[in-house]
Amino acid sequence: MAFSMKQRANTGLARKATAATSRVPAMVVRAVAAPAPPAAATETKNAFGVFRLSYDTQNEDPSLTRSWKKTIKVAVTGASGNISNHLLFMLASGEVYGKDQPIALQLLGSERSKEALEGVAMELEDSLYPLLREVSIGTDPYEVFGDADWALMIGAKPRGPGMERADLLQQNGEIFQVQGRALNESASRNCKVIVVGNPCNTNALIAMENAPNIPRKNFHALTRLDENRAKCQLALKSGKFYTSISRMAIWGNHSTTQVPDYVNARIGGMPATDIIRDMKWFREEFTPKVALRGGALIKKWGRSSAASTAVSVADAIRSLVTPTAPGDCFSTGVISDGNPYGVRDGLIFSFPCRSKGDGDYEICDNFLVDEWLRNKIRASEDELQKEKECVSHLIGMMGGACSLRGAEDTTVPGEV
Amino acid sequence: MAFSMKQRANTGLARKATAATSRVPAMVVRAVAAPAPPAAATETKNAFGVFRLSYDTQNEDPSLTRSWKKTIKVAVTGASGNISNHLLFMLASGEVYGKDQPIALQLLGSERSKEALEGVAMELEDSLYPLLREVSIGTDPYEVFGDADWALMIGAKPRGPGMERADLLQQNGEIFQVQGRALNESASRNCKVIVVGNPCNTNALIAMENAPNIPRKNFHALTRLDENRAKCQLALKSGKFYTSISRMAIWGNHSTTQVPDYVNARIGGMPATDIIRDMKWFREEFTPKVALRGGALIKKWGRSSAASTAVSVADAIRSLVTPTAPGDCFSTGVISDGNPYGVRDGLIFSFPCRSKGDGDYEICDNFLVDEWLRNKIRASEDELQKEKECVSHLIGMMGGACSLRGAEDTTVPGEV
Repeated sequence: MAFSMKQRANTGLARKATAATSRVPAMVVRAVAAPAPPAAATETKNAFGVFRLSYDTQNEDPSLTRSWKKTIKVAVTGASGNISNHLLFMLASGEVYGKDQPIALQLLGSERSKEALEGVAMELEDSLYPLLREVSIGTDPYEVFGDADWALMIGAKPRGPGMERADLLQQNGEIFQVQGRALNESASRNCKVIVVGNPCNTNALIAMENAPNIPRKNFHALTRLDENRAKCQLALKSGKFYTSISRMAIWGNHSTTQVPDYVNARIGGMPATDIIRDMKWFREEFTPKVALRGGALIKKWGRSSAASTAVSVADAIRSLVTPTAPGDCFSTGVISDGNPYGVRDGLIFSFPCRSKGDGDYEICDNFLVDEWLRNKIRASEDELQKEKECVSHLIGMMGGACSLRGAEDTTVPGEV
Repeated sequence: MAFSMKQRANTGLARKATAATSRVPAMVVRAVAAPAPPAAATETKNAFGVFRLSYDTQNEDPSLTRSWKKTIKVAVTGASGNISNHLLFMLASGEVYGKDQPIALQLLGSERSKEALEGVAMELEDSLYPLLREVSIGTDPYEVFGDADWALMIGAKPRGPGMERADLLQQNGEIFQVQGRALNESASRNCKVIVVGNPCNTNALIAMENAPNIPRKNFHALTRLDENRAKCQLALKSGKFYTSISRMAIWGNHSTTQVPDYVNARIGGMPATDIIRDMKWFREEFTPKVALRGGALIKKWGRSSAASTAVSVADAIRSLVTPTAPGDCFSTGVISDGNPYGVRDGLIFSFPCRSKGDGDYEICDNFLVDEWLRNKIRASEDELQKEKECVSHLIGMMGGACSLRGAEDTTVPGEV
């Protein structure tokens, strides 16, 4: 089968795309709709099957598009996988970035998944989402991350048989080193990066350290699924509907050392500990219920929880592009530099955060950390420090041996 | 493993649920959130694991719920399958029925898929959708369809090796006979039914004929995916963005005899035939491109197009609950009784329709049917008549032999 070679000479990506194309001649680029190019641009060289360079958008109803914002470019890795198969449709629907926010999707897959990527693009096309203005697919991160305003890094290699977490750190760390460098060269200088592929905190750290041109605070590791699951468990335990739970912080690593914070959580505006008067449950059962939820689910469902993971990625983005309710927070793994809780600098660590809705955030500084919480947070911090040492060679750091070899497996069950 | 036996004695489903529970004692019912019951109702007998009868919704922020409509009950069959795994999250998000429309999901699965259904319910729960007020799961259609305002009939048995379409008609016809009877007994008297499981037109006919208590015009067979794919193909061919395509009717059966109507289609408000001046393409290539799209997709993607199918079900619902734009139409398979185009009565046939957004619709009466279209429509009509004769024993009709045995397979590729 033949892939088309596209010249995006009439789009904003022109310079970068041409550079990347010359580097990787077998590149696949597929544009569902490019921003209204001159008529000549619709002459596509070597168009493959149903693929074309662009649509002429001039016939569109201006009453629809007049109030729209400038199109944002969202790069997604692991784009042919199960999580993306939910997430991409949520993004295209306008549910995440808003009904006035047109979007271009730039999808990264592997050589092996090229055809699957085309299938995903065809399904997106058949879905006729008005806000979806362009879909491009490719296998070169330097090209796919071109001018990206957001990079949603879903892809990671699954753990093979007999591999331990230390091996996974190494294997996926190398991928995130390459992708971090590609972000550094190609993405928007203010690109927001959300890492989902595991081990996501340390993968985010590696990407960040390899992308010095992008602000360190723009890198996130997804702990929102943990937050959502924690809210659900508090709802189940208290008999209150889940919308009544607030200030549900996840601290630390997205692993079984994560710390769902019952101390600061609220139920119907009251301290959770005033509603659920069962400290034994909070201290012994709550954290495992959250951390092992994915494993419980995979036993029922027979496959990993792609849909709710995608929902949590959508939630994580929405929390950055809409203002946080007064007094509330959301959880995300971000760089610990200068945090108000004494966690050592230089780790991607989950904190309670709030946002003005401008894509930026700040770490909430008014959470009470009691002794129980302090000890749990320290244990997760120690784990992240060890993970960092295991990948020191990938982040330009002098490092010793990886002390996680043979350690207990703290990977969240139900994930790779 | 143990399933919980639930008494829904404090919900509106009480009478029906109790009756159904006594009929099928091993019934699984799981309520994520029931409408604020008295405090005693939270005492759940035999609660299974994380499952509980209900949440107390009294602590919710009234500013959120004050303007909400009355909760609607949406029953979904094949609820643990791939299409539902997309559709349920779209329904729960508020994207389909509206942001002020709370929803109860009533999920039907098979004995074999019971645990998978629980997994789906757990993922819905973890997704914290404010509008999702209740999730119940079960294997008895009489129970699951209880008081349903909508029934989305996704489930059908896939075709086994060596089976032809006539066998599939028989096998799935029996399922839709049972489910039609269950709708007749349990569902809301004005329940809207959308059949997705194939062969969907004749399945819808069987369900309708077995549910005399529900208006015949409330039964739909999904041809919206065909409409969406046809719009995409016109966009690709014309180089116009897909939002500029209107009046794209699909006539007839959801099979390869379907008739995507280029005669009445508009591109940017102009006749499609004025924009794409290529009658050979319209007559020879357009219909196969639409009808064979699912097959092309399955070759790329390696699995059937669950996501875009779910999107088209969401579109089909949205077309009934929001007013149709003036002059436009949507396609849906509905009862042909008294239609303005001379199609014989008593078939579920896809027509261009419009709606005031009240859940009802009318067949558009101003479509031009030229000779080419007339002949194509007749061929699809003949096929539907033959399908009807093959299932005559399932709809209480005197019937002869099934003349479709050994006939050409007209099942849309990529589907069962």
